[in-house]
Amino acid sequence: MKALVLFSGGIDSSTALAMAVEKYGSDEVIALSCFYGQKHDREIEAAKNVAAHYGVKQKILNLAKIFEDSDSALLKASGEDIPKESYVEGKDKEGLISTYVPFRNGLFLSVAASVAQANGCEVIYYGAHKDDAAGAAYPDCTPQFNEAMAKGILEGTGHEVRLEAPFINANKADVVRMGLALGVPYELTWSCYEGGDKPCGKCATCIDRKKAFEENGVKDPAGE
Amino acid sequence: MKALVLFSGGIDSSTALAMAVEKYGSDEVIALSCFYGQKHDREIEAAKNVAAHYGVKQKILNLAKIFEDSDSALLKASGEDIPKESYVEGKDKEGLISTYVPFRNGLFLSVAASVAQANGCEVIYYGAHKDDAAGAAYPDCTPQFNEAMAKGILEGTGHEVRLEAPFINANKADVVRMGLALGVPYELTWSCYEGGDKPCGKCATCIDRKKAFEENGVKDPAGE
Repeated sequence: MKALVLFSGGIDSSTALAMAVEKYGSDEVIALSCFYGQKHDREIEAAKNVAAHYGVKQKILNLAKIFEDSDSALLKASGEDIPKESYVEGKDKEGLISTYVPFRNGLFLSVAASVAQANGCEVIYYGAHKDDAAGAAYPDCTPQFNEAMAKGILEGTGHEVRLEAPFINANKADVVRMGLALGVPYELTWSCYEGGDKPCGKCATCIDRKKAFEENGVKDPAGE
Repeated sequence: MKALVLFSGGIDSSTALAMAVEKYGSDEVIALSCFYGQKHDREIEAAKNVAAHYGVKQKILNLAKIFEDSDSALLKASGEDIPKESYVEGKDKEGLISTYVPFRNGLFLSVAASVAQANGCEVIYYGAHKDDAAGAAYPDCTPQFNEAMAKGILEGTGHEVRLEAPFINANKADVVRMGLALGVPYELTWSCYEGGDKPCGKCATCIDRKKAFEENGVKDPAGE
């Protein structure tokens, strides 16, 4: 295996998967999907469908127990509702927001590094983009965090595995633009924080997803 | 809770636990012990006994599935024998050694950061010391790695959690010296890579442990 893609089944990581498959071929790519106790498993289902579309090996890990003490609104164990607000609108707010899951991306990246190295992969694709941090609301999405983790992974694996974040200077509309050019099957992806039959259209990821397609002048194939 | 100690039940992390308890009191300390598929669970038993001695809350997580693709000699799934050689002797060797577990410490530190932040802890105590890297044999023990992860944890938790490695400039004999002064119950700790009734006396950790006590002019209370 050559590349591991940290893969949620959403827009960003599906586009990263498409890039990895284009570069290395589907036989050399593993898609790693982490379940972390989120309120629904609709995104794992989407991740399975997209991975099957590309014919890559998929590994699914359940990390829910690690987060069991967290009261994040994204987690099953929490009674809190998911707020209805865009990430980008939340940008100037101070402090962590209720949908932050403690050091989730740090954990995901470390799990990815362990699995990548055990499988002989030289690179981890990570679909982080520049709007992800939403100001300081998601500290595990900031450039400072990404740089430190990239260094930690490179050093900690004895320079055998490197982190690649191809969208780090792009926004979501840019990601969709690249993905449309690569023919990513966005109709199979899932972004909504809620787990209904259809996306809720009101949570942060729904709002920002819709906008990203609109900016490309196309209709979201998974939208209503 | 104030402090989380990454806690294996060995010499270094038991000494770190003693320091955390001395500073914060036992009610404010969580000991986090990670099982990762190692060949025996003797060290988890030791970790339980030491945590009980200090009366701290203990959390035990099983991360074995994350490492299931690894062929490290430390893991159950591997058929490889554990080599009989000191870490310190292995220092000048190049490349990773058979007891390296892919990015294990990176994963442990990330799990620690998630659990620490979910429990409101402001600090993670980590018992890494300067001989741990054994040259480049354990890249996830080098100062470069530790610094990058410390930065990643600080940034990724929004500066809510910091990593503290009190022994980073000490060797194992120094750690034992500090621990003896703090009255650490070393008779309860376990270092050996093998899971027998008594330490094998021949693996890297046994050899280095014995030496650390000898340099302090005392007999290892858990030795033969």
